[in-house]
Amino acid sequence: MISVEDARSRILASLGPTPAETIPLPAAWGRVLARPVVARLTQPPADVSAMDGYAVRAADAVEGATLAVTGTAPAGHPYAGVVGPGEAVRIFTGGFIPQGADAILLQEDAAPDSGRVRVNETVKPGRWVRRQGLDFAAGEKLLPAGRRLTARDIGLAAAANHPWLTVHRAPRIGILATGDEIALPGEPIPPGGIVSSNAHALAALVRAGGGDPLVLPIAPDDTSTIAEAARAARACDLLVTTGGASVGDHDLVQAALGPEGFTLDFWQIAMRPGKPLIWGMLGPTPVLGLPGNPVSALVCAVQFLLPALARLSGGEAGPPRTVPARTGVALAANDRRFDHLRARLETGPEGGLVATPFPVQDSSMLKTLARAEGLVLRAPHAPALPAGAPVEVIPLGELGI
Amino acid sequence: MISVEDARSRILASLGPTPAETIPLPAAWGRVLARPVVARLTQPPADVSAMDGYAVRAADAVEGATLAVTGTAPAGHPYAGVVGPGEAVRIFTGGFIPQGADAILLQEDAAPDSGRVRVNETVKPGRWVRRQGLDFAAGEKLLPAGRRLTARDIGLAAAANHPWLTVHRAPRIGILATGDEIALPGEPIPPGGIVSSNAHALAALVRAGGGDPLVLPIAPDDTSTIAEAARAARACDLLVTTGGASVGDHDLVQAALGPEGFTLDFWQIAMRPGKPLIWGMLGPTPVLGLPGNPVSALVCAVQFLLPALARLSGGEAGPPRTVPARTGVALAANDRRFDHLRARLETGPEGGLVATPFPVQDSSMLKTLARAEGLVLRAPHAPALPAGAPVEVIPLGELGI
Repeated sequence: MISVEDARSRILASLGPTPAETIPLPAAWGRVLARPVVARLTQPPADVSAMDGYAVRAADAVEGATLAVTGTAPAGHPYAGVVGPGEAVRIFTGGFIPQGADAILLQEDAAPDSGRVRVNETVKPGRWVRRQGLDFAAGEKLLPAGRRLTARDIGLAAAANHPWLTVHRAPRIGILATGDEIALPGEPIPPGGIVSSNAHALAALVRAGGGDPLVLPIAPDDTSTIAEAARAARACDLLVTTGGASVGDHDLVQAALGPEGFTLDFWQIAMRPGKPLIWGMLGPTPVLGLPGNPVSALVCAVQFLLPALARLSGGEAGPPRTVPARTGVALAANDRRFDHLRARLETGPEGGLVATPFPVQDSSMLKTLARAEGLVLRAPHAPALPAGAPVEVIPLGELGI
Repeated sequence: MISVEDARSRILASLGPTPAETIPLPAAWGRVLARPVVARLTQPPADVSAMDGYAVRAADAVEGATLAVTGTAPAGHPYAGVVGPGEAVRIFTGGFIPQGADAILLQEDAAPDSGRVRVNETVKPGRWVRRQGLDFAAGEKLLPAGRRLTARDIGLAAAANHPWLTVHRAPRIGILATGDEIALPGEPIPPGGIVSSNAHALAALVRAGGGDPLVLPIAPDDTSTIAEAARAARACDLLVTTGGASVGDHDLVQAALGPEGFTLDFWQIAMRPGKPLIWGMLGPTPVLGLPGNPVSALVCAVQFLLPALARLSGGEAGPPRTVPARTGVALAANDRRFDHLRARLETGPEGGLVATPFPVQDSSMLKTLARAEGLVLRAPHAPALPAGAPVEVIPLGELGI
């Protein structure tokens, strides 16, 4: 058995970003840039007014003065003339500052009267002028390669005049559920069988992680059907299997994949839930074999599949983010397996986060996992803790899963 | 001018969830349930083995005993017979416990030998048996209406045998950018003009909030084109406009919408960036008029559009979540407008969050907004604060925007 950290490092070391594709700007939200976004223009393109008012020569705009209004400069309609001594031009937010003017008289400080305007408050030079390039200059690198694009980034790339962006292709993740006992929801359930929940829970998790899930038909416990599915998945960036990974007479995934060229890297991890886990290569396609137990499969997916997706997507990849909390109940000493206690999170009386693990932590309890707000991490051989002791928690809500 | 809280309350009070639709389970991730998910079966469907081993009668399985192995019970293949005295059945995780057996002898505590198995450790009654219904029972309500579905919920609904789910329709949000001075990226830029960033930044934000954006053609500053676009948007659950909301001769949105049946609720908010904001109804369609300034538009969208989307989607709706932090620099006293300082977030030497506002907070600086990790909130008339003082921050990353 290897540690969670070792397993994640070995998985990430064998993966690289998908190749680039060029897509329309509106499709790029949440994708990772493969090339930086460089400003194609300067913003603002000229000195502009930050307010509604009058473009003036500050030297003339002293309290009590009256200026001749010689034109208007709304945004998008620059004033072609020059503001001469004793003159003003009506201007609006975003309007280009006309030649000759060097400041803005706010409209609330101005009293217009038949073609003239009285200055009610003296104007300082440069006041309410946004300088050309205040936001960015042409040629400036605005967003680096490797950046996962936010809505704000989409706005910035638009402002920099990019109708297209070059991003890493969304990683295609094949998902293969195996087992004689499972059926999809709404299908006839075989005797002694259960409804398969892994494939679609993992597909949703793949979407949350920015991937493109490909749910393969369920493979019964039979080497030929598993091998056939594995061949179908060669076009994927990663094949995820569930089930068939544990010790026992019915562990067929390894047996089925061997003749297809599967090479195993490791297959057991010192963690709970989720000890039986396979990592290897099927020809060029990496394979992550998750446990069949739905809770184990999802917890392993948080520790390994989400980081793998981040790496394949071209973004930063590492352990899931944790937050500090205090345990709401006493915790027993841990054994040698890194544990993930399904817990409720709430704000404690002193404002900090309190994580309270559910009393029964059986790894078959999907309902408990769904209701959990976080996973309390317990390192191998962690000592017993009293209620109120500090713990680290993976907050599940922010992962979108 | 009304307060941010009043404005949000008035917006939310006038909105309700969209009607329901029934969609396939895999499409439901991130959507909000309109009807609860009730278990259609019991899970596990019978008493099952939690481990690989032998189903035994605990009374017989004492250390040193030898039992006759009379069959096998892998998951999906129940053993049809009865485990009699002195007998055992080979079983695997998830296999149904055969009649007569009441406990599991772990395979690591068993020594099999030609049709018999020796017990190396005495077994307690009920050991390693998962009881029927441990996870959930048929008829149990598993997920309530109003729940935004996580990947784990998708798994739980699948396990409860639901191929379809009934959710609120994704709210369709019309987005109308106005202004003579703006052009879409890659299009010819009019003299004195800039590239429009609002429409696509807001479209990405709408996607992040679970909505379905409809980007309308840019409307020049002309009442007839704005009115035409407004008519096109009547099929939307909400129309968002940008630009044309500020004081001044060129504020046309209100003028253009009036003849179309627009009724104004309020139009100025004591906040920065973002004072000019319109809220009203265009016939049956609510209208949110955001400022034309991209930073103001996005900050207003965080305070008002994301909560509106949550309400329309059928989920819980309220103010954006804030987290406590300490300011990295001294902050000046605030005026009467609720302020949102664009800030970097980092973990301080004592483990807490430190929020450091950028030195220049001009509301035209989209690059600064894109680089910000949080918005430091400053209430109206908040006093000056020294570096290290506590502040509340909206963390932008977790909003997906």
